[in-house]
Amino acid sequence: MVRISLDVMGGDFGAQVVIPGAAKALERHPDIRFVLFGIESECAPLLDKHPKLKAASVFHHSEIAIAMDEKPSQALRRGRGKSSMWNAIDAVGKDEADVVVSAGNTGALMAMSVFCLRTMSGIQRPAIAAIWPTLKGESIVLDVGATIGANAQQLMDFALMGGAMARALFEVERPTLGLLNVGVEEMKGQEEVKEAGRLLREAGLDSIDYYGFVEGDDIGRGTVDVVVTEGFSGNIALKTAEGTARQIAEYLRAAMSRTLLAKIGYILAKGAFDRLREKMDPRKVNGGVFLGLNGVVIKSHGGTDAEGFAAAIDVGYDMVRNGLKAKIANDLQKYRAVAASESAAGSMSDEV
Amino acid sequence: MVRISLDVMGGDFGAQVVIPGAAKALERHPDIRFVLFGIESECAPLLDKHPKLKAASVFHHSEIAIAMDEKPSQALRRGRGKSSMWNAIDAVGKDEADVVVSAGNTGALMAMSVFCLRTMSGIQRPAIAAIWPTLKGESIVLDVGATIGANAQQLMDFALMGGAMARALFEVERPTLGLLNVGVEEMKGQEEVKEAGRLLREAGLDSIDYYGFVEGDDIGRGTVDVVVTEGFSGNIALKTAEGTARQIAEYLRAAMSRTLLAKIGYILAKGAFDRLREKMDPRKVNGGVFLGLNGVVIKSHGGTDAEGFAAAIDVGYDMVRNGLKAKIANDLQKYRAVAASESAAGSMSDEV
Repeated sequence: MVRISLDVMGGDFGAQVVIPGAAKALERHPDIRFVLFGIESECAPLLDKHPKLKAASVFHHSEIAIAMDEKPSQALRRGRGKSSMWNAIDAVGKDEADVVVSAGNTGALMAMSVFCLRTMSGIQRPAIAAIWPTLKGESIVLDVGATIGANAQQLMDFALMGGAMARALFEVERPTLGLLNVGVEEMKGQEEVKEAGRLLREAGLDSIDYYGFVEGDDIGRGTVDVVVTEGFSGNIALKTAEGTARQIAEYLRAAMSRTLLAKIGYILAKGAFDRLREKMDPRKVNGGVFLGLNGVVIKSHGGTDAEGFAAAIDVGYDMVRNGLKAKIANDLQKYRAVAASESAAGSMSDEV
Repeated sequence: MVRISLDVMGGDFGAQVVIPGAAKALERHPDIRFVLFGIESECAPLLDKHPKLKAASVFHHSEIAIAMDEKPSQALRRGRGKSSMWNAIDAVGKDEADVVVSAGNTGALMAMSVFCLRTMSGIQRPAIAAIWPTLKGESIVLDVGATIGANAQQLMDFALMGGAMARALFEVERPTLGLLNVGVEEMKGQEEVKEAGRLLREAGLDSIDYYGFVEGDDIGRGTVDVVVTEGFSGNIALKTAEGTARQIAEYLRAAMSRTLLAKIGYILAKGAFDRLREKMDPRKVNGGVFLGLNGVVIKSHGGTDAEGFAAAIDVGYDMVRNGLKAKIANDLQKYRAVAASESAAGSMSDEV
C-alpha cells in the first residue's frame, strides 16, 4: 500500500483535474490509498462521480484554497493549518501519508513544505528536481529553482540526492552524474562547480558514477542520468528548453499549414505528428520533486490536465515504492561517515 | 567601403570554408574590401578560384594556424604576431580593418582580442552577444560566456552595449531590454540582477526601453529585443536551447520515417520541412559578437559552411555600416556623464 495525500484545490483547475487524475492513477496502481484535502462543497460532487476513488480515499475538509499567484509569505500566514495545501503536506509530516502531490503555486508549496517537514538532517537546502526528457529516455536535473546559488558542499548534497532519486526512478544501480558547467575543460567555470567536481572525484561513491562537467546541450542529449547545478542556472535551463520546444512547435504548425501539399502531407503523417507531440508533451513528464525534506513532495504543473496530474501521482508512487527517502538518508549518512573518518584520520596524522 | 579582416585558417575547415564564404558575402556587398590572413600555400590556390574576391582583397601570409582545441594561454604564447588569428585581430587594432571575423577557437579568439584591442574606456569586461532566433524575429542575448559572473554595474554595461548592438543590427530606435531572472516577481533572483534592475529603472535611458525581468522561455518568445545575463547562465541557456532544437529535430526525423504514410506525408510536405529546417538552421544566425573592445570581433561557428561564414560576415558588415562602435561609446559616455552629474549634485547638497 502506498499512501498519497493530495492538495485537491491546487493548480489552475483544482478539483476538476485532481480528482479525475487521481482516479486514473488508481486504475494503474490499485494499491494506492489517498488522503484528500479540499473544500468539501467543491469536491464531494466530483468524488461521487468516481466511486472507486471514493472507496480508496479518506476526505478531509479544508477551509482555504491557496491562489496560484499568492506570495509564499502570505500563503503561509493565511493558509497555515487551514489550507488544503498545508494540510496535505502536514499529512506527510504526521505520517498519515508517504508522499504529497500538489499542482499549486510552487513558491507557496516550497515554503509550506520546508516549514512543515523541515530539511533532512545534514541537508542545508532543499532542491527541486525536474524529470527531463532526453534522446536516451529521461534524466534528472536539479536544482531547477528552489534556491539561488549553491556552494560546493550544497552541490555535493544535490548530487547525492539526485543520485538516490535516479536509482529510485530509473532503477539503475549506479547512475551517471554530471555537473553543469560552461565548458568541459578543467579550467573553466565557477569556483563552486570546480570544487564540487573535486569533492565528487575524491569521494569515489558507490552510489554515483561521476562523469565530470557537462554543458547545456548535454542535457537533452542524455549524456548523464543526473545533471547537478544551482537553482538560478537550473531554472534558466529548464525554462529556456521549454521555450525552445514551444517555439519549434509553433514553427512546425506554421510550416504545415502554409501550402495545400503541406496540409495533405500533415494529414497523412498525422500519426507521426501525434507521436511527436506526445514526446514533447510536458504532461507526460509532469512532476518536479522536492528533495532534501523529511518527506517527499511532488509538484505537478499548475496548468496540467487529469492525465498530467496522474503522471505526477505516478512519480510519487514510484518514489515511495522504491524507497527514495531511505536511499537519500542512507547515501548521505555513508558519505558523511566516510568524509568524517577521513578528516579524523587526517587530524590524527597531524598529531603524530 | 567596409574593411573586413578574416582569419582564413580559423574553424574546422579553414580556408575551404572562409574563402568561398567571403566570395558569397562580397556578391551581396560589393563595397567590402577584405584583408586576409592565412598560410599562403593553402590559401593561394583557393583564392585563384575566386578572382572577384582576390581583386577585392589584400592577402598577408601568416606562419601559424591556431588549433580548435588549443588552450587560450598556449594560443597566445605560440600565435602572438605570427598566427592568422592574431594578425587578423591586429589589423583592426592598427585601423587597417573595421571588423574582424574568425571561425576559430572561441577562447583563443577572446584572449587575443582582449590582449590586442583592449577593453573600451570605462568597460571592465567584454561580453559575447548571441543573435537568437525568436518567434518575433531575432533577439540579442549577452553575455553567453565571455566571463563568469557579473556585478550590477557590469550587467548595466552589458545592457548599454546590447542596446547599442540592437540599434545597429535591428535598426530600432529604442530597443526593449530585459534582465534574465528566475521569476518576474520583484523579490526573486540574484542580488546583482535585482540591483541591475534598479540601476536600469533609475537611469531612464533614451537608448533603451527597460522592460524588467524576463525568464528563460521569454527568450524564444521574443519578449524583448535584448536579454542581459552573466556569462555562466547565458552560456547554459544558449547551449540548452541548441540541445533542445537538435533533440526535437531528431524526434521529428524518427517520427517521419516510422510508417509508410508518414514517409509519404513527409515527401508531400517537404517544402514546409525545408523551410522549418532553414528556420532552425544555426548557419542562418551565425555570429557571436564580442562587445566592449576597441574594435568589433565576430565569432563564427567553428563547424559552419561557406553560407554560414558569409552570414557571419554579413553581421560584421551591418555592425560597421550602422556604426556600432560609435553607438556604444556614445551611449556609455552619456550614461556615465549623467551618473557622474547626479552623484556630484548629491555631494553638493551634502555640503549645503
